[in-house]
Amino acid sequence: MSTEDEPTTPRRFAPPSAAGPEQETGATFRPRFGADGLLTAIAVDDATGEILMLAHMDETALAATIDTGQVHYFSRSRGRLWKKGETSGQVQTVRAILVDCDQDALILRVGVGGDGGACHTGARSCFFRALAADGTLAPVEPAEG
Amino acid sequence: MSTEDEPTTPRRFAPPSAAGPEQETGATFRPRFGADGLLTAIAVDDATGEILMLAHMDETALAATIDTGQVHYFSRSRGRLWKKGETSGQVQTVRAILVDCDQDALILRVGVGGDGGACHTGARSCFFRALAADGTLAPVEPAEG
Repeated sequence: MSTEDEPTTPRRFAPPSAAGPEQETGATFRPRFGADGLLTAIAVDDATGEILMLAHMDETALAATIDTGQVHYFSRSRGRLWKKGETSGQVQTVRAILVDCDQDALILRVGVGGDGGACHTGARSCFFRALAADGTLAPVEPAEG
Repeated sequence: MSTEDEPTTPRRFAPPSAAGPEQETGATFRPRFGADGLLTAIAVDDATGEILMLAHMDETALAATIDTGQVHYFSRSRGRLWKKGETSGQVQTVRAILVDCDQDALILRVGVGGDGGACHTGARSCFFRALAADGTLAPVEPAEG
């Protein structure tokens, strides 16, 4: 019998480095989770480049995303792992994962299932309003390439 | 004499609404700052659609951005207001501000000054590495349209 199977808290990622060059330009993936255990993820439609949504991942969500190829987030409002599309069908399939210089933010380039959208309001992108000159919000034009 | 001039802490934004539809599909800008007083901002090159960087704003930074038309963030590492480009020349001029459904994240569509980049490493975008199949990070191709 092994005690190595399925640890509840995966520790599969290298820790952040205090050395700027190693963290910021190195070849080792060292995701920097914040004090709240989360990093930020931007989901982008791989076909169009459109930003669909912004959400957060803890270590478990990031590991699940890499292992399954389908995007998992950590729902801050529900306090639990959240497979995107589990109820809506708007599953996000990973095409590429980009990391920023200090490795506390990711871009997820995804293919989108279901109706192709990402927002629970029915909008394709969660960013469907723009700040107008008068300080109010107005609808923006849909998808740009 | 007036005591209304230049309040240190601007209170110019409407508070978040507990009513989902008002917050998520309404026309009133109700930025939702987190428990840490911050919301997340994604800077995008307005000319190419490329994601340049991700950073944070407190209420003061957001107000300064709107008032000056040049992007200000809150530097978490330095604990202070940070006008982007104040030392690098990589000033970001606001072309549009988009807000997401729950109003805790913004897209800033910007024109970029200086050398046209955004990252202190010298890369144009902070997202210059991608996660490879072997778990390491590899350079990504530059700007896409």
